[in-house]
Amino acid sequence: MAALDDAPAMALPVVEHALEFSLGCERIPGLVWTPAQREGPLPTVLIGHGRGMDKRRGYVEAVARRMVRELGWVTVALDAPGHGERRDPAAGPDEIPPKPDPDQMRTEWQACVDVLARERVVDVGALGYWGISMGAGMGIALLAEEPRIRCAALGLMHTRYYERILADAARITCPLLFSLHWDDSRVPRQEAFDLFDTFGSADKRLHAYPGDHSDFTDEEMAALQRFLADRLGR
Amino acid sequence: MAALDDAPAMALPVVEHALEFSLGCERIPGLVWTPAQREGPLPTVLIGHGRGMDKRRGYVEAVARRMVRELGWVTVALDAPGHGERRDPAAGPDEIPPKPDPDQMRTEWQACVDVLARERVVDVGALGYWGISMGAGMGIALLAEEPRIRCAALGLMHTRYYERILADAARITCPLLFSLHWDDSRVPRQEAFDLFDTFGSADKRLHAYPGDHSDFTDEEMAALQRFLADRLGR
Repeated sequence: MAALDDAPAMALPVVEHALEFSLGCERIPGLVWTPAQREGPLPTVLIGHGRGMDKRRGYVEAVARRMVRELGWVTVALDAPGHGERRDPAAGPDEIPPKPDPDQMRTEWQACVDVLARERVVDVGALGYWGISMGAGMGIALLAEEPRIRCAALGLMHTRYYERILADAARITCPLLFSLHWDDSRVPRQEAFDLFDTFGSADKRLHAYPGDHSDFTDEEMAALQRFLADRLGR
Repeated sequence: MAALDDAPAMALPVVEHALEFSLGCERIPGLVWTPAQREGPLPTVLIGHGRGMDKRRGYVEAVARRMVRELGWVTVALDAPGHGERRDPAAGPDEIPPKPDPDQMRTEWQACVDVLARERVVDVGALGYWGISMGAGMGIALLAEEPRIRCAALGLMHTRYYERILADAARITCPLLFSLHWDDSRVPRQEAFDLFDTFGSADKRLHAYPGDHSDFTDEEMAALQRFLADRLGR
């Protein structure tokens, strides 16, 4: 009992599940992380990965597992079109995949939520989105049309990422944290401010941290998670 | 024992102490809040009040008591020159006092720290500063010349508040959180960004929240406190 008492209060064991569903002729692979012990649907965070990453690579798995471990929720990541298992077989190993079509990605996320709600994994009444860089771009297209998502942690995105990004941003109304890096060489600061200004959400906040595009700190990652936890927590 | 176990872990009783010290012919009144039970010097946060407020009025007492209650630290507020007990007796009751001289205010804060360190109330190895609006302006002048202050939570300030504010901001090197309100009618957004950009601290972050100058939320106040807690906590 002493050992148990000394353990962090919320360090839950995490189980990874392979996910696969079809949309038209497209087979979409993903991963779902859940607490080892669970009953019924749980609050769920969809994690959009960055360009050239996939459902596991880079920070994705770390972010996903941390939320399950510390919050006891479900997290989900998909391979975006052209990424991970869906890479063009003709592409070289170091080739960065093309940017996915945000409309296609949105449709895939929506189908994914339908599947996981039907299987009673996801509580669609407590659904959040987490995405930075390309994950934010794809998230903005999704959030603009998906009222089931109740809150979002986004960042490292600008006003020209895809054609209708400002129109989509203006349609988003859920509570939102937007994060940026002060010296981001890929996201001009003023364009990040303009995007934040455009979000339709009355309940929004911006965090800016020093550093270039990829300079994440644990503080930033913790703030993104805490924001979703405060909003989705029941 | 059951009642104790059910109580929030860190809801400590708070004691308020009157403070008074002299600097030249000037008598400076302040307040010190401490946990009811304490031994020896504690981490301490200096709280700079806003224009027209004083050592107790507005958010000052609430912010001060919350830090003591939740962190078990010491907090201190002074009446700035021309404010509180130091108001011009000829001024009308609704008259807003003139902006204090930042050099005078800095000297008073430094004397205050000396006094409280000598009385073994303040641990000068764990000293932070909290100030928004005029409290940030006065804080910038203090932080530029006071290496004993290890971290600062500032906000709602622009580049023209006093003559040397940008030069002072550039000399600040401690970890710093700077907060702004996106639609602040008294602090032009771009000038708040420029001020943030000027701070010499490598370890700095900016939080922006919707609303006008006085539109604080509990989220913002909690973030300012948490930042100091993370940096000064031992």
